[in-house]
Amino acid sequence: MRTQVDVTSKSVRDLLERSEEHRLADVLGNLRPGDISSIMMELNEKEQSSVFSILVQHDRRLAAETLKVLGVEPGLDLLNQISSEEISKVLQELETDAATVFVSALPEENALEVLEQMDVEESAEVQHLLQYEEDTAGRIMTPSVFALFEDLTVSEAIHTIQTAKELEVIFYLYVVDERNHLVGVASVRELLIAPPSTPLKKIMTTDVISVATETDQEEVAREVALYDLLAIPVVDQENKLVGVVTVDDVLDIIEEEATEDIFYLAGVEGHDHIHTPPLTSVRRRLPWLVVNLGTAMLAATVVAYYEPTIAQFSFLAVFLPVVAGMGGNSGTQTLTVIVRGLALGDISWESGKSILSKEIVVGLNNGIVTGILAGLVAYLWKGSYVLGMVLGGAMIINVAMAGMVATLVPLILKRMNVDPAIASGIFVTTFTDAVGFLSFLGLATYFLQYLPVS
Amino acid sequence: MRTQVDVTSKSVRDLLERSEEHRLADVLGNLRPGDISSIMMELNEKEQSSVFSILVQHDRRLAAETLKVLGVEPGLDLLNQISSEEISKVLQELETDAATVFVSALPEENALEVLEQMDVEESAEVQHLLQYEEDTAGRIMTPSVFALFEDLTVSEAIHTIQTAKELEVIFYLYVVDERNHLVGVASVRELLIAPPSTPLKKIMTTDVISVATETDQEEVAREVALYDLLAIPVVDQENKLVGVVTVDDVLDIIEEEATEDIFYLAGVEGHDHIHTPPLTSVRRRLPWLVVNLGTAMLAATVVAYYEPTIAQFSFLAVFLPVVAGMGGNSGTQTLTVIVRGLALGDISWESGKSILSKEIVVGLNNGIVTGILAGLVAYLWKGSYVLGMVLGGAMIINVAMAGMVATLVPLILKRMNVDPAIASGIFVTTFTDAVGFLSFLGLATYFLQYLPVS
Repeated sequence: MRTQVDVTSKSVRDLLERSEEHRLADVLGNLRPGDISSIMMELNEKEQSSVFSILVQHDRRLAAETLKVLGVEPGLDLLNQISSEEISKVLQELETDAATVFVSALPEENALEVLEQMDVEESAEVQHLLQYEEDTAGRIMTPSVFALFEDLTVSEAIHTIQTAKELEVIFYLYVVDERNHLVGVASVRELLIAPPSTPLKKIMTTDVISVATETDQEEVAREVALYDLLAIPVVDQENKLVGVVTVDDVLDIIEEEATEDIFYLAGVEGHDHIHTPPLTSVRRRLPWLVVNLGTAMLAATVVAYYEPTIAQFSFLAVFLPVVAGMGGNSGTQTLTVIVRGLALGDISWESGKSILSKEIVVGLNNGIVTGILAGLVAYLWKGSYVLGMVLGGAMIINVAMAGMVATLVPLILKRMNVDPAIASGIFVTTFTDAVGFLSFLGLATYFLQYLPVS
Repeated sequence: MRTQVDVTSKSVRDLLERSEEHRLADVLGNLRPGDISSIMMELNEKEQSSVFSILVQHDRRLAAETLKVLGVEPGLDLLNQISSEEISKVLQELETDAATVFVSALPEENALEVLEQMDVEESAEVQHLLQYEEDTAGRIMTPSVFALFEDLTVSEAIHTIQTAKELEVIFYLYVVDERNHLVGVASVRELLIAPPSTPLKKIMTTDVISVATETDQEEVAREVALYDLLAIPVVDQENKLVGVVTVDDVLDIIEEEATEDIFYLAGVEGHDHIHTPPLTSVRRRLPWLVVNLGTAMLAATVVAYYEPTIAQFSFLAVFLPVVAGMGGNSGTQTLTVIVRGLALGDISWESGKSILSKEIVVGLNNGIVTGILAGLVAYLWKGSYVLGMVLGGAMIINVAMAGMVATLVPLILKRMNVDPAIASGIFVTTFTDAVGFLSFLGLATYFLQYLPVS
């Protein structure tokens, strides 16, 4: 009964320091790939690479499985430290879909070398998957899918399962016709309780949920989650069974897509990872910062327009970032709820109208409460109730409008087939900056004569 | 071969409008719960509630399964529109873990009524799960787990499977001793290929991964994902098998936890949902806005300190929000990468040091590039190279320090057992606001004599 790793990163580090390679190989050999991966995450890069090369030399299969759990980052860095021949041998131990992930992540020249040195059959399968677009069902499926011919009897089917090689877990029994068209599905239990001479045709369910090779992986994950499946078959244009995507891969997809959404909302491109080299991270974050700088400068022109007012009443500058910031915060809240709702398929363009009116109500409420509070602070601080009302009023306007805009922008982007997670934030914060400055300085200028002298 | 819903929300709406209840019940009866849920998401609240009550009257099982797919929100709203007796009957159709989710979401009085009117056995099971803390393995597990006694032979085990009631999919065959202690696990395939007279003891794997009833659901999901499991057994303190958590529930947990992280990062509490009533959403977002208002005002005191400088050079106010904002954006990028890395278990306190140095490098790089750009804009705009250097310098300081602070804050919070997703943002933006104002206005005041006259 072991749910935790008895071997700690500390004991691994000790063995590494004492160069007890064989002892370490023994210790690692008793662990699961998931355990080794957890330990490696606590080691530094040099130690990780030592552990990995010991694994490669002593238990290639375990090295490969650990690599799979680690994922492309930091897995790719580890692969880059061994020869392309060794890479081929390690990747060969993986299922085709996992091997393909790593091959496609290698630099092209390197990838070709690795494919050449792989087992011919495995190499062909990887190349087959590489033909499909990235992030589609075809690219992520396992191409070797266990299927039974529809004319088999139950006892023949059971015999086929008993003699099948390399069949670890049976998810569903897919049933095909003589031309490999997917025609049905059955469970192991249905097989076990049916009379031995019944043909599969009679016990199978013909209403099979499947996806096409070109279906986006996010959609694949959504179908698996929606229908509570353990695996989903992949068919080509003629409805021939060409592969299967299993639920363990779907778990990874869901985590990956959630990470992508979180990152895009924060203006970080794609798969920026803890272990991404610094300059790659710069490349993945700098563009958004530059765009943001541009829009911030644009919003700043509003402030520039009101410079004469500020020259006269310098304390306005104190509250300027507060108004803009509160609009931005409130807009980000709404934006996040909407973007996540779109990603999970909980909202559509059709249901957008009722959501818009809800967000306007929420924004108005939050604007009034924070506006009154901010106005009170300004009044107590500077002793001018006009200043309090100007600040409060501007905040109400900005927070309420932020809710509206932060709902509309992602809905419209989605409607235009642009990923709302990527592009919405920049629109919303530029808007809340500009409206914040405009409403606060505009109102202040309008009530100029009632403001206290600096 | 159907992967999409042939019935659209439009056709459902038409049938509703024409009050063709029986026709609609027939149409819905041919769909899967997931399909009905997708259609309902495109209907307005009134239509959703009509569809649900038709389901309840015509096919209670389908109503229950649809409710499960819809989740607590908006599922609870639909339940609230039928009598507590009907609620009992609907929830009874669900597996215990799913029924428990809804019962625990009901107002307490209502929940008690529902439990009273449920089938005694089912009600007892729900109440049993309710004893466990929310978000733990005990609360989310299915308490009826299929287990085999270790002394059974393979043929006896197969017979047991064949005659078992209500056993839809077999994930793993858990093996227990005479006192119900979990002692092993076997797969259906291992059963099928072993000689019929072999005792289970001989073919089972004794190294079973399990979780305790009090294990947090996030940890349960992580174990299932880490070891690529289809289900994980839940044991009590004596290692007795008390339940199982299956992978379809883990998919939901992963989505839920990702949503929670995304929301907390944006300052939205817990499960704010598209369909959450406006005033509940206000309650879930306002507290963070108020805290933020407080810290923004705190940061504003820095600006207040430099008011004399601004009174003299009002154009400084134009760039003030730009410096603070860029630090905030850059800090949010780093923060998001770190928080997500912590959530996925990719970083630990131990590996924190190397990550900190990476983030400092990234921050410095991004600070220099955006600083130079911003300085250039200021120079071209106002014609003062000193202003350009002051703005550029302040931006470099703020962006670089943002990277450092946004790495340290979540690591330290995690170390203190505080969820870094919830609390980090507020620290980081307050810091970048204050440092932005201080560095920009501080430098400006220092180089006062070289600045152009407003």
